[in-house]
Amino acid sequence: MSQSFTVEWDWVTKFVKDVFMAYGIPEEDADICTDVLLASDRKGIESHGVNRFKPIYLDRIKAGIQHPETNFEVVRETPTTAVVDGHDGMGQVIGYKAMQMAIDKAKEFGMGMVAVRNSTHYGIAGYYTDMAAKAGCIGMTGTNARPSIAPTFGVENILGTNPLTLGFPTDEDFPFSLDCATSISQRGKIEYYARIGQDTPAGMVIGRDGKAMTDSPEILEALVNGQAALAPLGGIGEELAGYKGYGYATFVEVLSAALQQGNFLHMLSGIGENGEKQKFHLGHFFIAIDTEAFVGLDSFKKTAGDILRALRNSEVAPGEERIYTAGEKEHLVWLERKDTGLPLNEGVQQEMIAIRDELGWSDYKLPFE
Amino acid sequence: MSQSFTVEWDWVTKFVKDVFMAYGIPEEDADICTDVLLASDRKGIESHGVNRFKPIYLDRIKAGIQHPETNFEVVRETPTTAVVDGHDGMGQVIGYKAMQMAIDKAKEFGMGMVAVRNSTHYGIAGYYTDMAAKAGCIGMTGTNARPSIAPTFGVENILGTNPLTLGFPTDEDFPFSLDCATSISQRGKIEYYARIGQDTPAGMVIGRDGKAMTDSPEILEALVNGQAALAPLGGIGEELAGYKGYGYATFVEVLSAALQQGNFLHMLSGIGENGEKQKFHLGHFFIAIDTEAFVGLDSFKKTAGDILRALRNSEVAPGEERIYTAGEKEHLVWLERKDTGLPLNEGVQQEMIAIRDELGWSDYKLPFE
Repeated sequence: MSQSFTVEWDWVTKFVKDVFMAYGIPEEDADICTDVLLASDRKGIESHGVNRFKPIYLDRIKAGIQHPETNFEVVRETPTTAVVDGHDGMGQVIGYKAMQMAIDKAKEFGMGMVAVRNSTHYGIAGYYTDMAAKAGCIGMTGTNARPSIAPTFGVENILGTNPLTLGFPTDEDFPFSLDCATSISQRGKIEYYARIGQDTPAGMVIGRDGKAMTDSPEILEALVNGQAALAPLGGIGEELAGYKGYGYATFVEVLSAALQQGNFLHMLSGIGENGEKQKFHLGHFFIAIDTEAFVGLDSFKKTAGDILRALRNSEVAPGEERIYTAGEKEHLVWLERKDTGLPLNEGVQQEMIAIRDELGWSDYKLPFE
Repeated sequence: MSQSFTVEWDWVTKFVKDVFMAYGIPEEDADICTDVLLASDRKGIESHGVNRFKPIYLDRIKAGIQHPETNFEVVRETPTTAVVDGHDGMGQVIGYKAMQMAIDKAKEFGMGMVAVRNSTHYGIAGYYTDMAAKAGCIGMTGTNARPSIAPTFGVENILGTNPLTLGFPTDEDFPFSLDCATSISQRGKIEYYARIGQDTPAGMVIGRDGKAMTDSPEILEALVNGQAALAPLGGIGEELAGYKGYGYATFVEVLSAALQQGNFLHMLSGIGENGEKQKFHLGHFFIAIDTEAFVGLDSFKKTAGDILRALRNSEVAPGEERIYTAGEKEHLVWLERKDTGLPLNEGVQQEMIAIRDELGWSDYKLPFE
């Protein structure tokens, strides 16, 4: 069992759902949580898929900092807008219902926006803009998160990696999906550099001395004790326009909190005064804009597709293979994986065995045992 | 007259408005065009203010590629959305009326969005998000533009510098205003480096060989003949996440064109088949979201202000003076300039004299003569 094992989609879907239900998540909600989690694996975004099943979701339910049952309470509503309290339930369920609400409003009134308070980690942001795109809408979403990014000219990890995630439908087989943090990168990428014994590219991480840190293992330690922070998209300082990424991160921080009187910045550390784990009380926002309310869905899709194709067909840099558009690489991963299944690394296999054992499911055989 | 001369705001406002009217712009529209133009100078964004009065606006009216009279035609409308044809009138007037329409819809229904076709250069995008913020709304706007940015792994200048501009009200004296291109920088910045005899920082510009260009005069020539392109925010390649800036630029390109069946990418060069100047037929979009539709304006402003203040008060990098938030530097410029007036460089002074002479206004004395 020293290597990757590929499981069938049906199997992993059933296993994840069974476990979520065993943790107290109602069946309908477990379907949503499973779909959001595995959407990440379908796209090849390993950082947000089954790798996170145990540490981010199961362990947090067990620690009591998020609830398996989700009380989705609409605290204020207008024809196009709503404020929702998620009562620290499952972020994926809250996100799914909130984006569906924004889409329903957009379908009726042209636009819809939902702001959420007291939520938890909602998985890949792109899941929600994909929902909008499938419904013929432009989708936008953002969320605040644990403090990680330093402002331009600052060194303190204070802003979340705050994704500003955008999507829309096209006339191709997959929607445009720009699902990205407003930092250059995330902890997971630095863990990857450490694993392969490489330095982290200069500019991605800033130390307390204001200089770029590049020693990957050193960075991982420094990120934990607050001695390092992630740089915003555009890098350290102003030279390559780091203030733009900082500005986008700020916009997401404000939209995630100020529309719902929620927590922000250091309040989102997940650590209490005495070092104990505490609820995150995350905030998100979801926007849907119906393309039908403008010149129609087909026209929108055609122009969008024409633009994306023209970009891909523009002149490629010497030495590079081709040009992609946002969401395309993830679609190509899915085309490869849909028939072969999901490769699980050894760590995930072991976690799944441990989860099964802890649940006392002695009859439940895992395919990689 | 070999140096900067500072004129009074009243004087420059009257001069610009008089000239716009002499070029055939109706008085009410001339007021808007003047206010948008000088808003840039008030903020210290020299690249978009009186420096552009003649080359971008007057010369284009004279060349017949934009009309001084603006026919603002609403071609489709729903309660929250509209599609507008600007008929190649003044971009500032089209932008002002379109954002006002989005704000009016937001005030009535919570949200509003207007997509515009057949427009012209609309000045600083931040003018329109400031309008939204003044009305208690979150504002977003974007526009397509002449092809300049190369996609990630590409070398062709194909995307406009496509600003994704965001703003919102706060409890401070000035709104949050992130008014920025989705490229790292713009031609104006490289002109500045050339003027002071400095290399352009590596990563800002990509050559046809796929490598960073740094020789500033060489870049300026290469940008004109298509042998260089601007890099998206995040830089060349994927290492520092250039695909994110490329993705944001693409999003703006699509939203600016696909909601109104407009032109895009190379169609926006402003150059016809035989090298003649032609109409740009630009597209823009304007979004307003009323904070009152969520937890109320005052609550929004307070949380937004608290977040911005916390960012500014976080730990400053050694050697740096302080941390700013988006729109703050521009506000500080205004505080300095509001009583002293607007410094005009020698080039602008000469342009203004030439404009006056060409109009045959022999009695019209300029303060710097």
